[in-house]
Amino acid sequence: MTVSRGREFLSIPGPTNVPEQVLAAMNRPAVDIYSGEMIGITDSCLEDLRKIFRTTGRTYIYAANGHGGWEAAISNVLSRGDKVLVLPSGRFALGWGDMARMMGADVEVLEGGWQLAVNPAAVEERLKRDKQHAIKAVVVVQIDTASGVVNDIPAIRKAMDAAKHPALLMVDTVASLGCMPFDMDAWGVDVAMSGSQKGLMTPPGLAFVAANARAREAHQTANMRTLYWDWTFREGEIHYQKYCGTPPEHLLFGLRKAFDMLFDEGLENAIRRHTLLAEATRAAVAKWAEGEVLAFNIPNAPDRANSITCILMRSDPTPLLDYCREKCGVVLGIGLGDLTGKGFRIAHMGYCNAPMVLGTLGAVEMGLKALSIPHGSGGVQAAIEYLGRAVKP
Amino acid sequence: MTVSRGREFLSIPGPTNVPEQVLAAMNRPAVDIYSGEMIGITDSCLEDLRKIFRTTGRTYIYAANGHGGWEAAISNVLSRGDKVLVLPSGRFALGWGDMARMMGADVEVLEGGWQLAVNPAAVEERLKRDKQHAIKAVVVVQIDTASGVVNDIPAIRKAMDAAKHPALLMVDTVASLGCMPFDMDAWGVDVAMSGSQKGLMTPPGLAFVAANARAREAHQTANMRTLYWDWTFREGEIHYQKYCGTPPEHLLFGLRKAFDMLFDEGLENAIRRHTLLAEATRAAVAKWAEGEVLAFNIPNAPDRANSITCILMRSDPTPLLDYCREKCGVVLGIGLGDLTGKGFRIAHMGYCNAPMVLGTLGAVEMGLKALSIPHGSGGVQAAIEYLGRAVKP
Repeated sequence: MTVSRGREFLSIPGPTNVPEQVLAAMNRPAVDIYSGEMIGITDSCLEDLRKIFRTTGRTYIYAANGHGGWEAAISNVLSRGDKVLVLPSGRFALGWGDMARMMGADVEVLEGGWQLAVNPAAVEERLKRDKQHAIKAVVVVQIDTASGVVNDIPAIRKAMDAAKHPALLMVDTVASLGCMPFDMDAWGVDVAMSGSQKGLMTPPGLAFVAANARAREAHQTANMRTLYWDWTFREGEIHYQKYCGTPPEHLLFGLRKAFDMLFDEGLENAIRRHTLLAEATRAAVAKWAEGEVLAFNIPNAPDRANSITCILMRSDPTPLLDYCREKCGVVLGIGLGDLTGKGFRIAHMGYCNAPMVLGTLGAVEMGLKALSIPHGSGGVQAAIEYLGRAVKP
Repeated sequence: MTVSRGREFLSIPGPTNVPEQVLAAMNRPAVDIYSGEMIGITDSCLEDLRKIFRTTGRTYIYAANGHGGWEAAISNVLSRGDKVLVLPSGRFALGWGDMARMMGADVEVLEGGWQLAVNPAAVEERLKRDKQHAIKAVVVVQIDTASGVVNDIPAIRKAMDAAKHPALLMVDTVASLGCMPFDMDAWGVDVAMSGSQKGLMTPPGLAFVAANARAREAHQTANMRTLYWDWTFREGEIHYQKYCGTPPEHLLFGLRKAFDMLFDEGLENAIRRHTLLAEATRAAVAKWAEGEVLAFNIPNAPDRANSITCILMRSDPTPLLDYCREKCGVVLGIGLGDLTGKGFRIAHMGYCNAPMVLGTLGAVEMGLKALSIPHGSGGVQAAIEYLGRAVKP
């Protein structure tokens, strides 16, 4: 017997739920790539990306996923042999570093872990020791969806400044843009990248990169540049140059609609919504954790991300994930990396409201009960109580 | 501040949530009405309706809503001046009776109420007094979405048989078909009607009527017949006669897909799912009712419907409904008739799973807390506990 027939609750950390309005905007024929509305869609999306990244720098849209965005960021500013310092806090900065290594960078990974945010003091200490300024770039993710951590980007910038180090600060905002504050210029981020499929509510297939003046200066001498990713080529006059070929039109129709929805809600309101839903989720998990079988992957509460909650389990999480999917229609994120077979992930990211989160948490709690997994009772209750207090009439 | 941006939770008792697969099936051009696949779609849907109504009688599909289905049912079997006995239990049997009266029937309304199921003993008593058999039809709804009641159709049939009365038994299954058992032939129902937009998961705009041999015999002499609704005309050889004109093709594309989904799940499984979700909802409402401000509209527990729960309040329900809609993105059913301004309704009907119901209940409980409406705490908790016990791994 199941109670799963109904809308699937996709509670994985990306791709996230695509709004019906975005799907509807994509449901149309292709259009000319040399004239007409596609020109305006491109220009307006590039401009809106500057508002979302909060930068006066240049923005670029790629027909690519987030990994493509990584390659675009690296290739435009680095040369083979350049030293890159990776600040790990889960999986994704390491992945970005692996990519840079294959492209010819000399990659060094700072000490870090799967349950900790990046320590700015360690960054400062390492950069101070680099007296020759061999390190050309520091790469870090704002939110790592594999560990559930959020890194303090302004503090990392301050650490770099305290070390008086000229390396570029390159930040992956794939799982944070639209979900929490990001302020590229004010925070001194030189290169930021993101993707369409998380907080930005659009199907996967678009990568975004923003570059400030320092990054574009480094671009002048970078020798990793290739045509597909190249900023200079994309800055050309002809519209198709902006995509180095055919624009991914339907994804752009969707993105235009998603940006309209984001600005209609208000970027600040969307960020506040993510904070409330994350707090509600954490209220439930904190209750469940009283059973001592489940625990937050990130022990230090302020380091827990507002778009994803990662949960460690002392027992195999597979039966719980299977129950939620097969019996309830709720798809949770599997554990990745150090969490493989040891935990699961609940996303509260993008097009996501209170009943979606409460429904997902309700299915998890049903599963905990049905499978007799020891847990503190009243998790969803705690989430409802939190939201009922926080969201005033 | 709101936490509403995300999928709207449409928790009204119809139209219900239309599955994405049904919408996708409708997302195509129109086709020829004289040849090709539309012929097969009509034939298969008429045949599947016989499986769903559980009848070997004839079925008819109208481009009409449920009210059209009422008119179709009445006009095909009655003549002006015929006496009709209405068995009220909320709003809809009365509405059907009003329609029959305007068409020329002599309508009598049995005593009944907004908080009670039809009493079969009263039906038997009234029919026994009709020694001349002036009453030609008894009309009743299986589930009344305005009151939240379910009527015992087999018991009403038994009452008619006990009175040895030949009146036709005509049943409105708009809010019950696909949600609870209905067994037209075994229960001795002569005419049943329904609509596309509730348990059958299709957009509104299609009405269904099923007629057994007794009904079709009455049809031969009925003088209320008009071409649009006429069974004989619709039984003609030419395909467009089956719709008395152009078939509502896109609704039929959707209906075909919805029926495929219903049989894929299994009709019995869908009914069991509705039972479980209704029980969960009632577990929550029973807790809330401890605060003595909320109460079930139907005091007698066995008479509560499995597709809709109607809740009476001692305070104005408007702020709660506004909170759920504006702050949480959950649309609840307003009170109708005797419940106007005095209650609200939670549907658990059609394409609906555990997280959808728990998310809806969670929003209601958020609203009760946020608005300081006295209520027993732990309603959603009780729903989760019920489902965790009932839905085994």
